[in-house]
This record gives sequence, structure tokens and C-alpha cells, in this order.
Amino acid sequence: MRSLLSVANVLGRLLMIFGIAYLMPIVCAVVYRDGTLLTFVVSLGACLIAGGALTLSTRGYQAELKARDGFILVALAWTLTAAIATVPLILHEQLSFTDAFFETMSGMTTTGATVMVGLDTVAPTINLWRHELNWLGGMGIIVLAVAILPMLGVGGMQLFRAEVPGPIKDARLTARIADTAAVLWSVYFVITLACALSLRLAGMGWFDAICHAFSALSLGGFSTRDASVGAFDSPLIEGVLIFFMVVAALNFATHFTVWRERSFRPYWRDAEVKGVLSVLLVSCLGCAVYLWLGEVYASFWTALRHVSFNLVSIATDCGFVSTDYALWPTFVPFWMLFLSALTASSGSTGGGIKMIRTLILVRQSSRELTRLLHPALAAPVTVGGMAVPNRVVVAILGFIFLYFMSIVAMTFLLIFGGLDFISAFSAVIACINNMGPGLGQVGPAANYAGLTDYDLWVLSFTMLLGRLEVFSLLILLTPMFWRK
Amino acid sequence: MRSLLSVANVLGRLLMIFGIAYLMPIVCAVVYRDGTLLTFVVSLGACLIAGGALTLSTRGYQAELKARDGFILVALAWTLTAAIATVPLILHEQLSFTDAFFETMSGMTTTGATVMVGLDTVAPTINLWRHELNWLGGMGIIVLAVAILPMLGVGGMQLFRAEVPGPIKDARLTARIADTAAVLWSVYFVITLACALSLRLAGMGWFDAICHAFSALSLGGFSTRDASVGAFDSPLIEGVLIFFMVVAALNFATHFTVWRERSFRPYWRDAEVKGVLSVLLVSCLGCAVYLWLGEVYASFWTALRHVSFNLVSIATDCGFVSTDYALWPTFVPFWMLFLSALTASSGSTGGGIKMIRTLILVRQSSRELTRLLHPALAAPVTVGGMAVPNRVVVAILGFIFLYFMSIVAMTFLLIFGGLDFISAFSAVIACINNMGPGLGQVGPAANYAGLTDYDLWVLSFTMLLGRLEVFSLLILLTPMFWRK
Ligand SMILES: [K+]
Ligand SMILES: [K+]
Repeated sequence: MRSLLSVANVLGRLLMIFGIAYLMPIVCAVVYRDGTLLTFVVSLGACLIAGGALTLSTRGYQAELKARDGFILVALAWTLTAAIATVPLILHEQLSFTDAFFETMSGMTTTGATVMVGLDTVAPTINLWRHELNWLGGMGIIVLAVAILPMLGVGGMQLFRAEVPGPIKDARLTARIADTAAVLWSVYFVITLACALSLRLAGMGWFDAICHAFSALSLGGFSTRDASVGAFDSPLIEGVLIFFMVVAALNFATHFTVWRERSFRPYWRDAEVKGVLSVLLVSCLGCAVYLWLGEVYASFWTALRHVSFNLVSIATDCGFVSTDYALWPTFVPFWMLFLSALTASSGSTGGGIKMIRTLILVRQSSRELTRLLHPALAAPVTVGGMAVPNRVVVAILGFIFLYFMSIVAMTFLLIFGGLDFISAFSAVIACINNMGPGLGQVGPAANYAGLTDYDLWVLSFTMLLGRLEVFSLLILLTPMFWRK
Repeated sequence: MRSLLSVANVLGRLLMIFGIAYLMPIVCAVVYRDGTLLTFVVSLGACLIAGGALTLSTRGYQAELKARDGFILVALAWTLTAAIATVPLILHEQLSFTDAFFETMSGMTTTGATVMVGLDTVAPTINLWRHELNWLGGMGIIVLAVAILPMLGVGGMQLFRAEVPGPIKDARLTARIADTAAVLWSVYFVITLACALSLRLAGMGWFDAICHAFSALSLGGFSTRDASVGAFDSPLIEGVLIFFMVVAALNFATHFTVWRERSFRPYWRDAEVKGVLSVLLVSCLGCAVYLWLGEVYASFWTALRHVSFNLVSIATDCGFVSTDYALWPTFVPFWMLFLSALTASSGSTGGGIKMIRTLILVRQSSRELTRLLHPALAAPVTVGGMAVPNRVVVAILGFIFLYFMSIVAMTFLLIFGGLDFISAFSAVIACINNMGPGLGQVGPAANYAGLTDYDLWVLSFTMLLGRLEVFSLLILLTPMFWRK
């Protein structure tokens, strides 16, 4: 109980810091005079009051947090910020709390699934708010993936503790997290700036360029248009976005090392980079040929253009869409759905099981087969020349099992509620991978507006489950966790 | 190469022994005068000639087989017997080789998926042949599961070596297998007899009673009617079949122990028995209530009758059908599909990952969660009071991963060929679990006749993959296996 109050104290301060997020929309409301100024000022007030009340009422309980409290902190940090971020959507767009919470949770987890229609005509500040949530969510994920989850020992990610750039190992926990975060956030910020600039040069207006840079770098995938990136119909814009989506799907620690060493060699040394690039390259070419031979597109280059954008977008878990790929022969959309589970790197803003785990699982499988034949010859699994300890392999296998079981369980919850199988299954995949569009009723040409409140709550939970790498959230649901 | 020839020699002898299988249909053809006598005499001849030629041409290569040869032997034993068993279907029913091979492979792996229509009017001997293949397949599986796979070390099943009843451990390999097999086969034979008798008493004719006893005990699920067990429309017959399907879904070694000890306590000691019974009981009651509340059936008892029969049949991987359950609300058929993957016991004639692995995985997951919180407290996984060694847990996790990946890969092969997702996915689940009916185009009211040759070959492979517990077949596809 005492430690819960300490967590609440931290959360209160976090909410007050989150207040900074309202400054950008307030400026935007002033500039665009779109009638949202009062809404965002009131929302800021609500955020500060909530945060302040929480901090003050628990001010006797400031204490260094234990690792165990980290699980509660992380889950509540996402849930509370998403909850408080609903205020502008409820006030100005008259969304129900369920719809608004789905939208903000989708933003903060960088899923990018939306229940809002008529995005093209909504007040610009509301759109900016959605995109900013994507971008802030991305910041949260980077520090989560690189600094917090490894400390909690979730799903074999301790493997990467050594890779964290920056400060010395013996520093105090919070200081270490803060320093690491600051380094990675500056990388994230600079690349976002570069993306916005490139999009502007490629022909977008400043507003759209900034919004889409936010949702590209965070791999969130929100758009200011109902038709997503398809609305711009520009190969140049698509090309720029492909580039930055791939950048965002790589480990930001690697980007930092590249910048510090002034050399591209760190990319070459990173086993995940090779994995991501080869998976994307082979899949794009293969699917383009498949669509071209299947006469979906008359020209190979048109096929390649549409496949490249949509496949890269789905595989990296961004979720931008430029055409209704659900109309393509079934194989391609399902292949894209499959890639969304495994393509993004660890330490990126993408979701799913992450490329490093994919690589380890592939090598572990072939090692298991070797062991059946020649028990003595089965060498340890290596990735990038580094031997992976056996307990990490076991943790990853355990992770992948729970990940699969979560997909099964969530799909059952949805079809239990009456949703058809394809919509349910693809929505769960899209949400657990923090990707965005599914198929069927939640396909690329539609959105999540048609679902029931029950469905939206199940999927909000699924997004958080994916974002917190399954274990960190599931553990809160065990009786053991709450036992003294 | 030398060892391949030794394997061929064993296979030749196996084919000649398989000739015995033709005696029952030959007697049947004489009794029923259904015009199939010549067909089966010729088929017997073909079988003996093929087997004889294989044995004679490799007679210089008789040698004790090494464990490694076991993988080739097992895969080819199923493939060759299925291939030779096609002869009567091709001669008398004019099936193509693809269709006939799918049918016999489906029989021998006890999958029970069928491409034949008009079963009600086909020559009785042809139906008997199909059901006998189910029954012989079941015999093969029992010895495979209890004696051969554990020896090959596949998927953590070495856990159960200690449970194998019968002879002494130091006996020669082949002698041990033969003794174990003889013991279990007599149990299998006696229970089949009891089932046939009970079906006769419940109102079936002798012919149907024998055929359905064959396909119930093997959990093969072939029927002499297009409408499967629904054609008899008898609650009594359904009740008898439910009982025997559950019996067949338990470990035959446990049945043997019960018989030897003259006591039901071995069931009580077997952790899998409790697992199977509770999963079936809870699911039947839950789904019956769901259908009743959903007003699919006006009376709870009618709902319970139809749910019990079809759910037990699908969950145990038998595959009999009494009504078109694909018309029920989506949740129920998908739940049945899910259960088909995990319900049957090891050492039974069912398929899927087996209850023992399910139990270990569930306990391993909760242990992983414990380990995150209290590393020191994480006790080893136990099943039935027995600690499961860590390497077994790892092998099982590896198994489940390859099992999932096989489902993904096979589904992609089918949708690549143009099949719709639900038919493809459910057909793969139905075939890899050796269960039978899927959904969509291959649903309970339809069968596999509408699929292309390509689909049928993919699914024939999938059935064998499931039957040989994935690893034992996949290993043959690695270059390493064939390296000197
Ligand atoms: K996304
Ligand atoms: K079956």
C-alpha cells in the first residue's frame, strides 16, 4: 500500500509534466483560431489539477521505487496520460469517453487505430493533438524499451542492457534512465525535424508535414486525412515517408552511435538492421511481382510503388495507408499482417515481437533440429557474432508463447462479443503490434468507428498489452503480484 | 546411402505385412458381393509385389537401424502405406491419385478429412477400407507416440519414457518396441470390440457399428455417411460415441495399467485425464449455455446434446459431426477448433500438441511471471507431482513455436494458391491436429472435394506434419540431415 502511494506520487508529477504537451496545441489554437483555445486551456487546467492533487495528497510517500513498483508505474503511466488526454476530444468533438480513450490510448501506444471520421474537416488543433500523442508515445516507448523493460527483466530484453549508450553503470537508477532518455530523445527530435522538412519540400503544407513527421517517427500512423497518405497521391511524399519509417523501425541507440562515431558502420554491425532491410526488400519485390503477374496492376512500377509504401508502413507498424490493399489477393494483406509482428527493431518505436527476437527464434529452431541429430554439435545461438545465453532463449520462447496466447485470448473475447472472425483476428494483430489498420470491418478503407464499446475496451487493453511487451501488463493480473 | 537401403529393406517388409490389411475387405467383398472383390485381390497383389521387390532388391542391407534412420523410416512408413492404399480407390472409384492419396493419408494419419461424396451409396467394402485405414493408423500412432518418438527425442516427449508399460529397459530396441506395441494393441483391440458391440446395441447395423468403432477408437472420424453421425439422428448412438471418443483421447498406457491393476486409480493419478475431462466438461456446459441464451436452441437439453457431441468430437480430434455447427455463433466453432489443438492426451490416438504439453506450458507461463517478481521463489514446473526438467520445458517451448510457425506457413501456402483465409486457416488447423472438418469451404456440412490438387498436397503434407509431431518431418527437410 505504501509503495502504491509512492507510485501515485510519481504519477502525479508525471501528469504535471505532461501538462507541457498542451502548449503546442494552445499555440496552434491561437494561430489557426479554430475555436479550440478554450478547450485546450481547460484541458491543461484539468491535467494540472489532477496531477497536482495526486502529488499533494501523497506527498508524504516520496521514496525510491523498487523494481516491482516499476510494473505498476509503467502500466498506469500509459493509462493515466491516455485518460487525461481524452479531455479535449470529449469537450470539443463530443466523443464518448470510450471512443476518446480508445483514440488517445491508440495515440500514446503509437497504434494509430482511429474511431474518428471526417479528419479532413476537423479543427486543425485537434488533429495536431492526436499526432502529438503519437509522438509523445514514441518518446515513452524509446525510454521504455531501452531503459525500463530490460531493468524489469521482461521477455529476454536484458540482452540489450549492454547496448544502452551513455552514462556509467553504477549511477543511480533514475539518473541513468534520465540521461539515456535525454540522449535518445535528442536523436528522435532531430530526425523528426528532418522528416518534417523533407515532407514540406516534397510538397506537403507545413501543418501536414509536421503532423505526419510526428506520426512517422513514432510509427504511430495517425493522419490528418480519412484516406491517410493516399489523400496526397504523391510518389515523392510516399518515398520520403518510406525512408523515415524504415529509420524509425531501427534501434535509436544505433542511430545515436552512428551520430557519435560519424560513421555508418554501426548499422552494419547491428544484426537487426540487416534483418529489417532484407525482410522489407524481399517482401516488397516478391509482392510487387505477385500483384503484377496477377494483373492487379498493369505496370510493375505501379505495383512496386503501392506495395512498397503500404507494405513498409504495415511491416514497420506505422499504419499509414495509400490505397485499399484489402482488395489485393488475400496473400499480400495477410503477409503484411504477418510482417507487422516481427519486423521492427528493439529500441525502435515499432511494435510486435521485434526483429532481434525473430532472429533468435529462427536460429534457435535450427539449433533444436541440429540437437536432435547431433546432440554434441549443437552450438549456442549467436546473433551478430554474440552468443545468446540459454536463459535468454528460454525467456524469449516464453515471451512468444504468451504473445501467441494473448492473440488467441483477445480474438476469442471479440468473437464472443459477436464480431466476425477476420475483423476480430486482424484487429487484435493490428493492436497488439501497435500497427493500426486491420482487415474486414477494420480494414484500410474503414476504421474502428463501427465497433461496439465492448470491442473498443478489449482492443484498448490489447494495445497496451502489446506496448508493454505482454509480460509487464499480465503480471499485474496475477494474484501473486498483489500478495504481501 | 547404405543406411537408406537398410531403411528400404524394413519398409519392404512393412508393406508385405500391410498386405494383411487387405484380408478384411476381401472377406467383406465376398459377403456383400459389391463388385469389389477383384479390386482388392489385385490391390493385395500390388502391395505384396511392391513390398517384395523392395525387400529383395535390398536384401544385402539388413542392419540394425540407427536413431537417425528412425526419422526417415517413420516418414516413409506413413507415406508408402498411404500410397499403396490408394490402389483400391483408384481402381474402383476412379479417383485421381491426388484425391486418393489425400483420402488414404487422411485415413492413415487419422485425420478423417474426406474428398469423397456419396459415401451412403458407395460399395460397402470401399467404406470398410477407409475405416480400416483409420484404425490401422491409430495402431501406428500408439506405437509411434509411446515407443518411437520418445526414442528420437522429439518435442520433450522423452518425459514419458518412464511411463511406458511392459518389458525391461535393457532389451534390444526392436524387441522393446514390439512388446510395448503388442500390449497396447490388445488394449486398443478390446476397447474397439466393446465400442462396436455398444454401437450395435444402440441401434446401428453391424456394418456401421464396426466401421464407426474403427473410426472412433482411432479418433479418425471417417463415416459411412456424407452427413456423418448426424445421419443416424440418435442421442443414444451419440452418447456411446462420446464415451468412446473420450476413452480414445486418453493415454492407452493408462488404460493398460487400469486393466493390469484392476483399479480405476491410475486414471486419478494421470494428470492428463483430469485435464481432458475438465476441459471437455467446462467447455460443453459453457457453450451449451451460450447457445441456449443466444436462442440457437429453444431447450437447454437440445443445446447440450448437440454441443456435447460435436464439441467432444472436434476437441478430441475425432471429427464426427452431427449437425452443421458452422451455423452456430462464431465463438463456438472457433473454440472447438482451438480445443482440437490441445485436448487429446499423449499416448492417445488424438492429435495436436497434447494435454501434457498444454499443462506444462500453462504452468511454465505462471512460473515465468513468478520469476519476474521473485527470482528466488520460482519453483520448477511440476505435473502430477513430478518435476519437469528444464530441458524438457525448453524442448516443449521449441516444439510449440515450430507448431505455430507450421500453421502460419501452411496457411500462407494455401492463401498464396488462392483459397480464402478462413477455409485455409481452419483447414490447416484441422489437418495439423489430425482432426478433420474445418470451416468455410471445408466446413462440417461440406468436405475437401472442392479444393485444388495443390491445396490437397499442401494439406496431405500438413496431416503428416501434425502426425509426426512436426520435428520428425521437418528435420528431413534440413540440408544438415542429408550431409555425411
Ligand atoms: K502504428
Ligand atoms: K480425426
